[in-house]
Amino acid sequence: MKEFAITITPRLYETDALGHINNATIAAWFEVVRIRFIESLVEGNPGIGKDWILASVHIDFTGETFYGSDVVGKITDASIGNTSFTVMCEMSQEGRQTVSGRAVLVHLDMQTKSPKRVPDFLREQLAAR
Amino acid sequence: MKEFAITITPRLYETDALGHINNATIAAWFEVVRIRFIESLVEGNPGIGKDWILASVHIDFTGETFYGSDVVGKITDASIGNTSFTVMCEMSQEGRQTVSGRAVLVHLDMQTKSPKRVPDFLREQLAAR
Amino acid sequence: MKEFAITITPRLYETDALGHINNATIAAWFEVVRIRFIESLVEGNPGIGKDWILASVHIDFTGETFYGSDVVGKITDASIGNTSFTVMCEMSQEGRQTVSGRAVLVHLDMQTKSPKRVPDFLREQLAAR
Amino acid sequence: MKEFAITITPRLYETDALGHINNATIAAWFEVVRIRFIESLVEGNPGIGKDWILASVHIDFTGETFYGSDVVGKITDASIGNTSFTVMCEMSQEGRQTVSGRAVLVHLDMQTKSPKRVPDFLREQLAAR
Repeated sequence: MKEFAITITPRLYETDALGHINNATIAAWFEVVRIRFIESLVEGNPGIGKDWILASVHIDFTGETFYGSDVVGKITDASIGNTSFTVMCEMSQEGRQTVSGRAVLVHLDMQTKSPKRVPDFLREQLAAR
Repeated sequence: MKEFAITITPRLYETDALGHINNATIAAWFEVVRIRFIESLVEGNPGIGKDWILASVHIDFTGETFYGSDVVGKITDASIGNTSFTVMCEMSQEGRQTVSGRAVLVHLDMQTKSPKRVPDFLREQLAAR
Repeated sequence: MKEFAITITPRLYETDALGHINNATIAAWFEVVRIRFIESLVEGNPGIGKDWILASVHIDFTGETFYGSDVVGKITDASIGNTSFTVMCEMSQEGRQTVSGRAVLVHLDMQTKSPKRVPDFLREQLAAR
Repeated sequence: MKEFAITITPRLYETDALGHINNATIAAWFEVVRIRFIESLVEGNPGIGKDWILASVHIDFTGETFYGSDVVGKITDASIGNTSFTVMCEMSQEGRQTVSGRAVLVHLDMQTKSPKRVPDFLREQLAAR
């Protein structure tokens, strides 16, 4: 899979009194990266692959993130199960890795709120990357 | 009107790199105070006075707010117009005023998203305070 | 003054259960816009015009902001007093105005935490816009 | 170890457009729970056990969290290594588990930003629970 990357400019209010970006902000950015990634897969096909719930998230804070320079957030790998979508994320700042994360999303039937097979269209899109 | 007060315990992630509570967090706390105030007015009457939109907010930051001690958030005055609800808010920390604010809410018909007369029940509740 | 504009892409976690961008997020975005504006004025002159405290903020929510399309955040006017900096902000989405705001910042001596004359350099930069 | 529990009242701005509490808010609440837990261990001993950095966090979202009723956030287990502190967290709402989490904190020498042995005082406090 080709890496997917977006740029995030840290905001002052995302820092905390320790002088760095707060860990909950990193969790929030991770959401931004994976949503943009999924949006890129289903682009031009509204209604497909919209309904997900986050099952789990794991974040290793491998370096501090600071205000003042851009962060690159990447999806480095992704795999689709029957109803789940697992994405691996890395963030870096000035060439230095700051975050390594993994999220498991579950595709949802929004009416019943029960898991639903991930559309094959998404599998094809991912395979084509 | 009798003052309405709640206690808010500052959280570490609500600070910013300047070492104090960020201004956007204060705006968020103001929402907490006014929602709890309205909930206290309509208590036990679900469905009344639920649908509001914020028309404007004004906040004077009269002192810095810090992590480490509780904040008291008060509604010091409130008045009801035809479709609007204006609330005055004060926050203080260790007896020192930190925030003076004013918010104007508009009661909304959620179907049409147009203003709708504030229920008289709320006027009575407010008058009884 | 020439308008200063930046683009903000709404994030899912910035919405609330009412299905729109929460008002506290708008206050946070306003901080982003005014900080970028000041950074643009002092660009290449680190150490000048860095120390500010927010004295007051006023926001009129003239329209709802939604997830799904970019927001343009503008500083439409700015004026410098002796120790204060007042900025007027407008936000719009798909050509529709959503926010009109005004913030008053005070330039600070960070040692004594007392107001300090705004550097003339900033006045010149602002006049040149 | 005796469970440590605090109560968190969900705030409207902590919800997202999916109608539930956003996952990044859960990460933020987890910080609140573990900081209060550590504060309870070192109570009355300022300066001990203050300097930590988050090394990793894992969160299983075992159920949705909603606005409208309180959340109980518990530390169900904790263990201290040489320089690390691992805490297990559970959150529940109306008796239903919503979150199971694990965080690893590293005790830090704030001057050198390198790991530093966790004070034995904390080990004793934890053993006494």
